[in-house]
Amino acid sequence: MNEKNVSCCPVERLLGVVSGQWTAYLLWVLHQNGPQRFGALQKLIPGISTKVLTERLRMLEASGLLLREQAATIPPQVTYSLTPRGLELRALMDGLGDVARRWDAEGWRPPVR
Amino acid sequence: MNEKNVSCCPVERLLGVVSGQWTAYLLWVLHQNGPQRFGALQKLIPGISTKVLTERLRMLEASGLLLREQAATIPPQVTYSLTPRGLELRALMDGLGDVARRWDAEGWRPPVR
Repeated sequence: MNEKNVSCCPVERLLGVVSGQWTAYLLWVLHQNGPQRFGALQKLIPGISTKVLTERLRMLEASGLLLREQAATIPPQVTYSLTPRGLELRALMDGLGDVARRWDAEGWRPPVR
Repeated sequence: MNEKNVSCCPVERLLGVVSGQWTAYLLWVLHQNGPQRFGALQKLIPGISTKVLTERLRMLEASGLLLREQAATIPPQVTYSLTPRGLELRALMDGLGDVARRWDAEGWRPPVR
């Protein structure tokens, strides 16, 4: 067994936050589209429920990857954007997009579940 | 809203396969450690149940990312390894490891859930 002495714990921790289909896609959408309002995120992520989106935004905020800004307007306007740490995932997101588009062009499709 | 005209569908499809927490970690482990037997994968992925590991391996095999080889031994020995397409995720996996180790060294920890 070709076992590289890699402490996997950091990867497990990071995956605990960023993996998960909705979360990873939410990160992708924010990387592609910049700061967004809640309603816009719901439109950009078809099928995500208000509850799940709220939870994921809170978790990403608590993880230091997301900034929630509330403007002093009436009613208050809330905008979500990636923090500098969140933006550090840029290379990963771009790599994800490259693979996805290449496989798509090759006709790769996931199995029907 | 800074909307880049990016067809997100391919990314959604790819994330549908690779983004689950167990799945992403399973891919990471295979990238780091090369071909593995079922039992070895269970040891390398603490906490994963036999049922979940079996499902994920079948899904990755059906997605063309994983090869299941059965040696003509008695009893038959089954080994799992990444296909050429699965190995195309190498850059993503390496990028994931780089971010995870860097954040870990900076003391980043995910929120307790």
